[in-house]
Amino acid sequence: MTDPIRPTDDEARALARGLLRDARIASLATLGGDGAPMVTRVALGLAPDGAPVTLVSDLSQHTRAMRADPRVSLLVGEAGGRGDPLTHPRLTLQAQAEPLPRGGTAHAEHAKGWLESHPKSRLYIGFADFGFVRFRVSAAFLNGGFGRAFNLTPADLGL
Amino acid sequence: MTDPIRPTDDEARALARGLLRDARIASLATLGGDGAPMVTRVALGLAPDGAPVTLVSDLSQHTRAMRADPRVSLLVGEAGGRGDPLTHPRLTLQAQAEPLPRGGTAHAEHAKGWLESHPKSRLYIGFADFGFVRFRVSAAFLNGGFGRAFNLTPADLGL
Repeated sequence: MTDPIRPTDDEARALARGLLRDARIASLATLGGDGAPMVTRVALGLAPDGAPVTLVSDLSQHTRAMRADPRVSLLVGEAGGRGDPLTHPRLTLQAQAEPLPRGGTAHAEHAKGWLESHPKSRLYIGFADFGFVRFRVSAAFLNGGFGRAFNLTPADLGL
Repeated sequence: MTDPIRPTDDEARALARGLLRDARIASLATLGGDGAPMVTRVALGLAPDGAPVTLVSDLSQHTRAMRADPRVSLLVGEAGGRGDPLTHPRLTLQAQAEPLPRGGTAHAEHAKGWLESHPKSRLYIGFADFGFVRFRVSAAFLNGGFGRAFNLTPADLGL
């Protein structure tokens, strides 16, 4: 079989960084107690150091799943507009979920940046069950459309 | 903690069935060899019997993953347009992936329906590495926006 993965170049790196920087939502895959995957939608933003981060409720299944097993995957790059949606570029991240303690200095710094990119979450960011989960990215996969697939490292993403 | 899951009603069933019927793409979570999840984008349609189905290449990581471990999850319901994307309804399916043999009568019947909903895939549907994978749904989770979460059965979806 032909290897569909291309050698990484600066164009691929720039495309991937742009997808991550512009993402406001992501599809999040977590693991259930039985080891089966579950995919849900979460809000996504960037932490002060550039790492992807989400704001989630302790009442959500994905939050409980991440606390039990931190292995997750994220998909960013929405397929809006015209044409075949499979030609729209998207980025898969393989990551470890790291819940951030509530109420500390780091939480306050994350909240400041988060509200700039997600102003509507002002409605619930202060709720006692909402907290940040940071994602430590270990690998990424960029699909820039048919025949344009790349395996990326955290360094390729500036992480 | 408060249970955020509401009792299923006909409005929830209708919303979920509509999300599944209208979906042309989905976020697909599969399991890697190490048991970690991976989420990618796939095209999604309905088989002649109404089950969700995708058309994928054997060269793709998700196809190889589904052949090794059929446990998957799918997210449908795009977050286009205005407003907080987390208020847009979306549906998570828990399912088993069932690859369909190429070249048989079932493949031909699936291809006919698929090309009606995905006319642009005429470009590659005949490629030797492309085939259908049907999804046998075991459970579903509908998020209709904040405070509107429902656990659904296959029967709730008409499956």
